[in-house]
Amino acid sequence: MNPFKSPTLLLLLHIIFFFLISSSINIIGSSTTTPKFRNISEIPQNSYGITGYSHITLAGLYAHGMKEVEVWLQTIAPGCHTPIHRHDCEEVLVILKGTATLFFASNSHPSDFPGNPHRIPVFQNSTFIVPDNHPHQMWNTHEHEDLQFLVVISRPPFKVFVYDDWFMPHTEAKLEFPIVWDKGFVQPDISKDHHHDL
Amino acid sequence: MNPFKSPTLLLLLHIIFFFLISSSINIIGSSTTTPKFRNISEIPQNSYGITGYSHITLAGLYAHGMKEVEVWLQTIAPGCHTPIHRHDCEEVLVILKGTATLFFASNSHPSDFPGNPHRIPVFQNSTFIVPDNHPHQMWNTHEHEDLQFLVVISRPPFKVFVYDDWFMPHTEAKLEFPIVWDKGFVQPDISKDHHHDL
Repeated sequence: MNPFKSPTLLLLLHIIFFFLISSSINIIGSSTTTPKFRNISEIPQNSYGITGYSHITLAGLYAHGMKEVEVWLQTIAPGCHTPIHRHDCEEVLVILKGTATLFFASNSHPSDFPGNPHRIPVFQNSTFIVPDNHPHQMWNTHEHEDLQFLVVISRPPFKVFVYDDWFMPHTEAKLEFPIVWDKGFVQPDISKDHHHDL
Repeated sequence: MNPFKSPTLLLLLHIIFFFLISSSINIIGSSTTTPKFRNISEIPQNSYGITGYSHITLAGLYAHGMKEVEVWLQTIAPGCHTPIHRHDCEEVLVILKGTATLFFASNSHPSDFPGNPHRIPVFQNSTFIVPDNHPHQMWNTHEHEDLQFLVVISRPPFKVFVYDDWFMPHTEAKLEFPIVWDKGFVQPDISKDHHHDL
């Protein structure tokens, strides 16, 4: 049978063709409208409901179409901190302002939990390469000063496992995906939730 | 023929096995000795012979074993500039100090050369996502102030094509690999040069 002689198949081919064309237009469209240059002071910052936290995505997968790296600017108020977390992407931190303590556990600990972390004092004009899958936590231990740092991560989207404490087993750390600042972009997978309820 | 009964093949298998084992030891060794935390003020900066230029690799493939991203801190003196260049990796710039002009050509120019570039004024606390394969050049147009910025690139090693001017055909732009600050790490491929001479 020649598929080009069947009206049903021809209709199907038209639908596929239309879908491909409209996808390409979308891709091209979103790429050309991506803002390339921005004044950071004019980018809205958001705490996403986290006390003493501020996040700005300078370059992100969902916000700007990045495929290989993301760059964030984060500020943590005195006494506040990130959760204890690990991820399997590369991460580089560059401290722009303030002083803090980076808690950092080796992933070669003989137990199946992070254990007591190292305490690394970090300060303005210092940099840290976070090895993948090593649980860590940034804590602004200064009494008065904000801590501000750039975060570079590879291989977006960012998938992070969060620990309640340093003695929580690695296998119980909770996957946070999408991360809070990407939640507005990513639609929840309703079919999966539904399947879970059955 | 059973290869395990041939002394030559057995010797060959031994050599391959020894090579594999020693490579893994090297990989593990270099990973554990990578410096994770550094005071940027204590990292030596180098001009690599380029007038008015300073480069520090905060996180790099050759220097720190990065596989997916590199982060650099670069300073350009007043009146100095990068070459006109393009690359096919992602790049994000974050301006930390100074003001400058970023010259930037679209890659959808109808000709086969970059053509007259856009001039984008950049300043402290601004950020720019450089679209891949778009020729660009950072020029410190300020009379007195240094320009300092962070560069984030994806997919190291960094391979860059350099143009003499904005009207040089894309096909004539010269591949710079390894880039000047990686030259000390990468051994020239002597066999290829030799082959070229024949």
